[in-house]
Amino acid sequence: MTQPPTENTGTDDTGAAAVGPLPAARGFASDNQASVHPDVLAALAAVNDGHQPAYGDDAVTARLREVVRQHFGPRAEVFPVFNGTGANVVSLQAMSERWSSVVCPESAHVNTDECGASEKIAGLKLVTVPTPDGKLTPELVAEYATGFGNIQRREPAVVSITQSTELGTVYTPEETAAVAVAAHERGLAVHMDGARIANAAASLGVPLRALTTDAGVDVLSFGGTKNGLLLGEAIVVLNPDAVRGLVYLRKSSMQLASKMRYVSAQLVALLDGNLWLRNATHANAMAARLEAAARAVPGVRITQAVQANTVFAIVPKDAADRLRKRFPFYTWDERTGEVRWVCSFDTTAADVDAFAAALAAETPS
Amino acid sequence: MTQPPTENTGTDDTGAAAVGPLPAARGFASDNQASVHPDVLAALAAVNDGHQPAYGDDAVTARLREVVRQHFGPRAEVFPVFNGTGANVVSLQAMSERWSSVVCPESAHVNTDECGASEKIAGLKLVTVPTPDGKLTPELVAEYATGFGNIQRREPAVVSITQSTELGTVYTPEETAAVAVAAHERGLAVHMDGARIANAAASLGVPLRALTTDAGVDVLSFGGTKNGLLLGEAIVVLNPDAVRGLVYLRKSSMQLASKMRYVSAQLVALLDGNLWLRNATHANAMAARLEAAARAVPGVRITQAVQANTVFAIVPKDAADRLRKRFPFYTWDERTGEVRWVCSFDTTAADVDAFAAALAAETPS
Amino acid sequence: MTQPPTENTGTDDTGAAAVGPLPAARGFASDNQASVHPDVLAALAAVNDGHQPAYGDDAVTARLREVVRQHFGPRAEVFPVFNGTGANVVSLQAMSERWSSVVCPESAHVNTDECGASEKIAGLKLVTVPTPDGKLTPELVAEYATGFGNIQRREPAVVSITQSTELGTVYTPEETAAVAVAAHERGLAVHMDGARIANAAASLGVPLRALTTDAGVDVLSFGGTKNGLLLGEAIVVLNPDAVRGLVYLRKSSMQLASKMRYVSAQLVALLDGNLWLRNATHANAMAARLEAAARAVPGVRITQAVQANTVFAIVPKDAADRLRKRFPFYTWDERTGEVRWVCSFDTTAADVDAFAAALAAETPS
Amino acid sequence: MTQPPTENTGTDDTGAAAVGPLPAARGFASDNQASVHPDVLAALAAVNDGHQPAYGDDAVTARLREVVRQHFGPRAEVFPVFNGTGANVVSLQAMSERWSSVVCPESAHVNTDECGASEKIAGLKLVTVPTPDGKLTPELVAEYATGFGNIQRREPAVVSITQSTELGTVYTPEETAAVAVAAHERGLAVHMDGARIANAAASLGVPLRALTTDAGVDVLSFGGTKNGLLLGEAIVVLNPDAVRGLVYLRKSSMQLASKMRYVSAQLVALLDGNLWLRNATHANAMAARLEAAARAVPGVRITQAVQANTVFAIVPKDAADRLRKRFPFYTWDERTGEVRWVCSFDTTAADVDAFAAALAAETPS
Repeated sequence: MTQPPTENTGTDDTGAAAVGPLPAARGFASDNQASVHPDVLAALAAVNDGHQPAYGDDAVTARLREVVRQHFGPRAEVFPVFNGTGANVVSLQAMSERWSSVVCPESAHVNTDECGASEKIAGLKLVTVPTPDGKLTPELVAEYATGFGNIQRREPAVVSITQSTELGTVYTPEETAAVAVAAHERGLAVHMDGARIANAAASLGVPLRALTTDAGVDVLSFGGTKNGLLLGEAIVVLNPDAVRGLVYLRKSSMQLASKMRYVSAQLVALLDGNLWLRNATHANAMAARLEAAARAVPGVRITQAVQANTVFAIVPKDAADRLRKRFPFYTWDERTGEVRWVCSFDTTAADVDAFAAALAAETPS
Repeated sequence: MTQPPTENTGTDDTGAAAVGPLPAARGFASDNQASVHPDVLAALAAVNDGHQPAYGDDAVTARLREVVRQHFGPRAEVFPVFNGTGANVVSLQAMSERWSSVVCPESAHVNTDECGASEKIAGLKLVTVPTPDGKLTPELVAEYATGFGNIQRREPAVVSITQSTELGTVYTPEETAAVAVAAHERGLAVHMDGARIANAAASLGVPLRALTTDAGVDVLSFGGTKNGLLLGEAIVVLNPDAVRGLVYLRKSSMQLASKMRYVSAQLVALLDGNLWLRNATHANAMAARLEAAARAVPGVRITQAVQANTVFAIVPKDAADRLRKRFPFYTWDERTGEVRWVCSFDTTAADVDAFAAALAAETPS
Repeated sequence: MTQPPTENTGTDDTGAAAVGPLPAARGFASDNQASVHPDVLAALAAVNDGHQPAYGDDAVTARLREVVRQHFGPRAEVFPVFNGTGANVVSLQAMSERWSSVVCPESAHVNTDECGASEKIAGLKLVTVPTPDGKLTPELVAEYATGFGNIQRREPAVVSITQSTELGTVYTPEETAAVAVAAHERGLAVHMDGARIANAAASLGVPLRALTTDAGVDVLSFGGTKNGLLLGEAIVVLNPDAVRGLVYLRKSSMQLASKMRYVSAQLVALLDGNLWLRNATHANAMAARLEAAARAVPGVRITQAVQANTVFAIVPKDAADRLRKRFPFYTWDERTGEVRWVCSFDTTAADVDAFAAALAAETPS
Repeated sequence: MTQPPTENTGTDDTGAAAVGPLPAARGFASDNQASVHPDVLAALAAVNDGHQPAYGDDAVTARLREVVRQHFGPRAEVFPVFNGTGANVVSLQAMSERWSSVVCPESAHVNTDECGASEKIAGLKLVTVPTPDGKLTPELVAEYATGFGNIQRREPAVVSITQSTELGTVYTPEETAAVAVAAHERGLAVHMDGARIANAAASLGVPLRALTTDAGVDVLSFGGTKNGLLLGEAIVVLNPDAVRGLVYLRKSSMQLASKMRYVSAQLVALLDGNLWLRNATHANAMAARLEAAARAVPGVRITQAVQANTVFAIVPKDAADRLRKRFPFYTWDERTGEVRWVCSFDTTAADVDAFAAALAAETPS
C-alpha cells in the first residue's frame, strides 16, 4: 500500500521535533487513526480507585467475563490482550502445535500486515489462499487444507477467517457455518480475526453470537481498538477444547497487561450495553454514504461490495494523489490504482460530504 | 514466589462470575496493583481530539521525542511499547544477533518473570549470574562474558542490568559506568531494564541521564506502568549505533500500538515536568517508612538494603500468612520465609502505618 | 503428492518388524531412494585412519576447500552440512535479518517440502510466487520483492531460486544472471537451492561456476545426497559479503557434523574429478530416454520441459495406480493426475525400458 | 574450554589451503576426533544395493526397530537423527509444550555445547542446576522443578540428565530411578542424553535397558558418533505416551535423513551384536589406564571420579600447554587449570602410555 502523507514509514525515530500539534487531518486512512469514544475514557476514570490484583484477577476483568458470556454463551472465556496482532498470534498458537499450518486468505491481516509475527513468534506456516473478495469457502478449505500425515508438509490445524474481511466484505452466519463444517470435518479448528466483527454484526443485523459461537467458530480475536477503544482486544474462546496453554502463551508472547483492569474496563464499556453496535453502525453508515457519493462520480469505480465500514475504489492516480494531500488514505494496489477508504465511529457526514465533493472535483470524468 | 490471596494464578479463565466489585484490598504485592495517576488520565483526555496518524507519526509522539531528548540527550530515540517484557525483549533483539547470548543477573526480570519470552521470541540464550544483591559488577562481567569465537557457545553480545534491581537495590552512576566499561571493552553493549529507574534516580538524587547516557548505557527500557501509568513503557535508545531493525522488531514482536498517541501522551505526562520524580520519591519514602517500622519489630529481619521502593524481610511464616489475608504481598523465598513488600506512588502513610501495626501485632517477638 | 506404496507416511514408529529385507523395488519416486556411488564409499574408507580434529579443522575438509575453489572461484567458502533443508535454512538465515522476507517460487522446496523449517528455525516469512515452470524471472522479482521500509510487511532480503527446479526445468546462465541483477538492484541477495545443480550443469554443458559465481549467485546449497552420496550437502558461499554468522548458525541449527571428515570426503569424491558430472549426465540421459518412450504412449501427456533428471506427465489415474505397485513414483497433483518420475545415477536403461513397457501396457489409448 | 591447537575455532572458512594431509595427531581432545569402526564401514557397503524407500520406510531401518526393541523393550520406538544436538533438541520438543521449561545440570551439553539450539529451535527455557559432579538428584529436582501454574515462569515439563555425564561420572540404575520418581511425581518426563550411554553401561556392567526403560527414563538420545559411527544418533522413545509430534519435529528441525538406510545400518552394526559394548569397554579401560598413570605423577590431581571414558585433572598450566602441542586436549576450566582427557574406542594402550610418559616428564613435581 502507498502510505498517506502523514502515515508512519518505519522512521519514527528520525522525525524532526514538531513545533506544535500536527494538523489533525481528518481522513479515511484507517479506523485506527480515529479518537477514543468518550464513554471509554469515562470508564477508565470509573475504575481508577485503589489497588486491584494485577494480571486479570481484578473485579473489572471479572465483570468482563460476565459480559462476554452474555454475548457469546456460557462456555465463552475471555483473555484481554494489547492489540490485534497479539490476539491473532496468541490464539493461533493456542489452537495449534509446533508442527501445524494455518489456512487463511492471502489477504488476511496475519499474512499481510503483521510483519510475519505468526512466523516469528510461533514458527507457524501460513497456507495462503487467493480469493477475489477476501473470503474462504468450503471448497477452498477442501482444496488447501491438505497434506495430512505428510511429514514433508505441516499438519493443517486451523482455518482463520476475517470478519469483516480486509476487503470490506462480510460472511453471513450461513457462510461462516459452512466454512466451519468444512474445517471441523477435516479436524481443523476455526479462528476468526474479528478486528471489525462489530461492523459485520451491524451490517447483518445479527448478534455477535450468531457470527461466532452459533456458526461454529472456536476462537475469536474480538476487536476493540478500531471501534472506539484506546487500545485493547480480547481473545474470546468459544470452544475451550480448542485451546491449550493460552495463559502461558499470552504471557510469553508479551500480551499480558499487568494493570489489566484498564484494558478490561474499555472492553466492558464497549460490550456492556450497545456502544459496540452504535459505533459500528455509524461507521458502516458513513461508508455507505461515501459509496453512494462515489458511485455518482464518473471515473470512479467501486471494486468490492461495501458491506461494512470500508470502500474500495479505482480512482485515477493523479486525482488520488491530489485528494490524499487533504484527506489521508491508502492506495491498496499500485498497479490498478485501487484505493481504500475506511470510515470510523467518529467519521461525520460532513467528513464524507467534503471528501465526496473533493473526489468529484478532482476526478476527470 | 507464593502469590498473595487475590493474585492471578494462571486460571483467570475459570473464575466464577463476581457478584460485585472485589474488595480493593490495599497492600504491598506490587506497584503494578496501583492505580493510575490523575494527571495521566487527564493527559489522555487532552489528546482525544480528531484523527491522528497511527503507529507513531502523530503529534503527541513527536512531542515525546522532544521530551525524551531533554532528559537523555540529543541522540536519544524513543519507541513506545506496551509493557516491560516487550521493552526488554525488543531491545535485546535489536542489540543482538541470532547467535548471541545475554549476560544478566540470575534475579533479572528477563530471566525469572517473563515466562521465557527472550527464549521464545528471540531464541536468546541468557547467561545468568548469581549475585547476592541483584547487581552485576565488572568482575562478574569478566567472569561470565566468555566464549568469544567458540561456536559451541553463543557469542556474548549484551550485558543487561536492572535499575533499581529486583532486590530493591540501586546502582550508583559510578557502578553503572564500571559495568559499562567492562562490557564495552569486550564488545558487548549495555541494556538497562529500567522498569523502576525513576525510583533509582529519586533515591540517588540524580537526573535520569546520569544513570544512563552519561554512564555508558546503550539502550534503556524506561518504565511507566509501575510509576503511575495505565500501561506503557518506552525503549530509549541512547546509542543508535547499538541497535538494528528496531522498528521492524517492535512490530513483529507485537509491541507496536496503532493509536500510539494514547501511549505517548501518558509518557509525556510522566516526563514533561516532574511527575516521574514525584511519584518515585513518594514510593521510596513509603518504603523507607515501612523499613523503619519493620526494623523496630523483633522477629523481623530486613534482608536487603532498602534503596528504592521495595523492602525485603524475613518474617515468621505463620505471621506472614495471617498478614497476607489483610494486606496482599508475595513470599519471595519459600525456604527462608523471605517476603517482598513494594510501595507505589499511591501508597499512603496510613497504609504503611496500618500494615506496620499489624506486622508488630502478628509477629511473635 | 500421493505417496508411493512403500514410502514413509510419518508413521515409521509403528511399522511391524520386517521378516527380512523389503523387496528393493526399483522405481522413479526420487533420486533419494538411490544407492551410494561406490567411489563415495571408497572415499570413506580412504580417510578412516587415525584421529582428526572435529568440526571441520581436519585435513579432508581442508582439501574440500581447495576443490570447491577450483570449481567456484577463489572467494568461495564451503560449509558442509547434513541435508538439503539444512543447507537452505542455514544459508537463508545467514543472508537475512530477523525481520526479513525471502522471495521464492511457490513450488520451491523450502516452501513445500521442508515442513516449514524456514518458519520454525528462522522465523522467516516466505513470499511465494506462482509460476508455471518453477522459475522466477526479473519481472516476477520486480512484482513480488516489494514493501521496502514498510514495517507492517517484512523487508525483502533474499531471492531464492532452485536449479534444476522442482519441476525439472533449468535456468540458463543468462536467466540466472537476469534474476540476480533484478535482485541486486533492489538490495536483495541471491540464494540458489542447488540440490540438483549438477543435473542443470550437465544439461546445459557448462561448468558449475557459470551457473553460480559468474551469474551473480551469492550463496549456493550444493547438493550431494541426490547425486550419489550417502548424505551430505555443502553451503558454498560465493560472495562472503552476503553472509553473517554462518558458523554459529550452522551449529545452532544443528547442522554441524563433529566427524566432518566423513562428510567432506564424500563431497571431495564427487567434486575432485568429474563424478558429479558423470552421475548427473547419466540421470539426465535416463530421463530423456523415459520422456521419449512416454511421448510414444497415446494417453500420456508430458507436462513440463524435460531438462534435467525429472519427467512430469499426466497419466490416467487407474493406470498410474497399477504402475505404482511395481515401480514406486509420486502423484504430483491429485486433481489433474499429473505424476513425477525421477531418474538417478543408478537408474539403468533396463529400468527405464521395463517401466516404459509397463506404461504402454497399462495406459489405455 | 581452551581449544587444542588443531581444533575448530569457528573460522573454518578462512583456512589457507592445506598442501597435504594434516598430521593426524592422536590425542585426548574428544571421542569425536576418533575414526570409524571398520564393522561400521562394512555395514554401509552391505546395504548399498538397489533402491530403498527414503525417510525410514526401508528394510534396514525396519531391522533397526527390531534390534532396538531387543535392547530397550517392546514399547521402544527408534528415530535415527544426524547428531547429538539433534537428538536432544528434537526429543525435548516432543516432550514439552511451547510454554515449558527443562530442568538440567548446569554442565549439560544442551546448556553448554549446543550453541543455544534448545532456545533457538524450540524456544525452550533451561533451568540449570549447579552440581559438583554433573549429576541431578531427587533433592535437586525438588528444589528446581518449581513454579507450576505460575504464568510468570514456565511450566516445568522435563528433567534431562546425561549418562555418562559431561564430567565423566555415571548414574547407577538406582540413582536414575530415584531422579525419575522425583520427576514423575511432579508430572515431569525424563530425558536422558545418552551420547555416552554405552560407556555408562560398560562401566556398570548392566544392559542398556537397566539404565533407561527399567529406571523410568521416558526418552533417550542414544549416542553412536562418539562410539565408532561415522555419524548417527537415535532418539529412542521408551514411553510413547511421553512424546507428541516427533516425526514432524524431526523433519522440521532438519534431522530427517532421506537415505536413512545408511544411518540405520550404522546403528544396527553397533547394536545388533555387542560392538557398542566392546567399543565402550575399551574406551573406559583406556581412561582407567590413563587415570592410574596420572595419579602416579606428583603435581597432577584427578578431580572427578573416573567412571567412564573421561579423565579430569588439574595440571600446571605450562605443562598442559607443552603437552597439548603433541597430544590435543581441552582445558576445561581456565581458572583452575583443570583439563579433560577423553579416550575413545580407537585409543590404544600405546597412546595412553606415550601420553602418560610425557605427562610425567612435563609436570614439575
